[in-house]
Amino acid sequence: MMPDGRLEMLDQRRLPAEEVWLPMPTYEAVADGIREMAIRGAPAIGIAAAYGVALAARAIFEQTSSADGLEVKLAPIYAHLAETRPTAVNLFWALERMKKCVVESAVLSGAARVERLFEEAAAISKEDRDNNERMGRLGADLFGPGTRIMTHCNTGGLATGGLGTAIGIIRALHHAGKLEHVWIGETRPYLQGARLTTWECQQDQIPSTLITDSMAAHFMQQGKVDAVIVGADRVAANGDVANKIGTYGLAVLCGYHKIPFYVAAPISTIDMETPSGEAIEIEQRSPREVTHLNGMAIAPEGMDAASPAFDMTPSSLIRAIITEDGILEAPYDVALAGLLG
Amino acid sequence: MMPDGRLEMLDQRRLPAEEVWLPMPTYEAVADGIREMAIRGAPAIGIAAAYGVALAARAIFEQTSSADGLEVKLAPIYAHLAETRPTAVNLFWALERMKKCVVESAVLSGAARVERLFEEAAAISKEDRDNNERMGRLGADLFGPGTRIMTHCNTGGLATGGLGTAIGIIRALHHAGKLEHVWIGETRPYLQGARLTTWECQQDQIPSTLITDSMAAHFMQQGKVDAVIVGADRVAANGDVANKIGTYGLAVLCGYHKIPFYVAAPISTIDMETPSGEAIEIEQRSPREVTHLNGMAIAPEGMDAASPAFDMTPSSLIRAIITEDGILEAPYDVALAGLLG
Repeated sequence: MMPDGRLEMLDQRRLPAEEVWLPMPTYEAVADGIREMAIRGAPAIGIAAAYGVALAARAIFEQTSSADGLEVKLAPIYAHLAETRPTAVNLFWALERMKKCVVESAVLSGAARVERLFEEAAAISKEDRDNNERMGRLGADLFGPGTRIMTHCNTGGLATGGLGTAIGIIRALHHAGKLEHVWIGETRPYLQGARLTTWECQQDQIPSTLITDSMAAHFMQQGKVDAVIVGADRVAANGDVANKIGTYGLAVLCGYHKIPFYVAAPISTIDMETPSGEAIEIEQRSPREVTHLNGMAIAPEGMDAASPAFDMTPSSLIRAIITEDGILEAPYDVALAGLLG
Repeated sequence: MMPDGRLEMLDQRRLPAEEVWLPMPTYEAVADGIREMAIRGAPAIGIAAAYGVALAARAIFEQTSSADGLEVKLAPIYAHLAETRPTAVNLFWALERMKKCVVESAVLSGAARVERLFEEAAAISKEDRDNNERMGRLGADLFGPGTRIMTHCNTGGLATGGLGTAIGIIRALHHAGKLEHVWIGETRPYLQGARLTTWECQQDQIPSTLITDSMAAHFMQQGKVDAVIVGADRVAANGDVANKIGTYGLAVLCGYHKIPFYVAAPISTIDMETPSGEAIEIEQRSPREVTHLNGMAIAPEGMDAASPAFDMTPSSLIRAIITEDGILEAPYDVALAGLLG
């Protein structure tokens, strides 16, 4: 958010080659940015959607000189933002929170009501930043000196409102002098690891090595990985986790190599309405994201490809779920209900 | 080999975008082609190296009008070809066989001796083709109708002298009407699956879907994979297998999902001199193969990356090793010694 009230977002598709800030003047621009992955990462998507609601409210106020009836007028906007991406629950969580704020702000007059919605979006962002810090501290306490962490996708400042979830813990470990090395899985097909996590690690001078996803097992076999930490797009009530495609395979590999597998997830990622991982809708993206890279074909013309964006890791493979309010262990149904109850 | 005695090889780096045939007028050109991966696949590397020896002998004969003393004169050529790539044992096997032929052909006069070496290289190629067919038939007998196979890297006609090893079995299954589908792992970083195996499957109209390596576990979890078949760059005396990076992870995933994991390996890939997988040298290639794709950076400038070209799968994870002379099962030390004894 710029001081003059304009919203801009760093276009993550262009990183690390270019740092391009995209203006987001309307909720449609925000929705397009989420769908096209200019904005990505479960917490960042939630924050962006919250600002999208506030932008839409401001547009309605400017057009009609009134902020009355926003409860009804914003309904199609919630729907438009909600249908951008199906898996990350923070999107729906943030929209629900904004919807509640819209209802509660009905006592305010025009401009003040719009202002209240921008404040709520800013609060969601600020809370996410604070939660990252607490999660980072809690997570770092799990490890001793000389720890070598493997991670997947991007869960850093680009994916959140602050230091990041899994990367927030890595940053805290680094800050505490306990981090020896980070193995960054490149995270095909979209290369969030190769393009974004590398970039964040470089900026913080965190010692790290990029690997292809297919190399993870090899470095585990060689005894070079002490723990894997990933983020989450949705945590079900029984502790099953939907996260970036490739996560489930890493969890299985950890089980075989007796390496602890951790999930760093803010409470906004927990969805008690979803009983288990099987109930989570897995977004299927365009096969072109697999057959092409930056517009260049890497497979023959007409080749069929699959592109599930996420996979589901059963809670049985997860050593602990690290939240901002505590570290949860199995049985997760009890632990999650206790945390949220 | 062209009818006029010139050697040409399909440049696999340019596939599938372009079909470019590289002239290989000298053993140095063959060595460069192997090192730079214009020629790849363990059996194909062996065949190319054999022709490299014959080309060198012809050059010596043309320069000196004599084919005497080739045993000594070719020694640096063997060494030059042997140091191109360290892991695939077929290279060393083919060089040993050519060395033996050089010794045994000493009874022949100039041109006839050179001719004999070309015949030997052609015989290696022809035997590989025959072996592929036998291996394909034997392997296909393992499966019933409606089989869904996952494979990794490229083990087809491009990697061998014939129909391929793992892909030879897939072709035989397809021919027998028992193949329902093939899942092709793209095989980062060099994308042999995305570029080459897709291309071969398309040419034979084999129903197939390209996936990123990170999706393998997801499709196994969904019950969509009946077996994984891969090739081998070297089989140790205890049945441990070195193969393209990513193979070991697939084997671990198969173990977890109770999916049989098969290795298709011609006998020329078996190395009884190597007691176990730990003794196999794993080639480390340039980090640039991970940070760049077709010359385009996919990671920030200066980012460290690892690039082991192969990994090692312990025999305990292998259901069977399919050779042209029989299907081997554990205990592999006994089975391999029996086959070769």
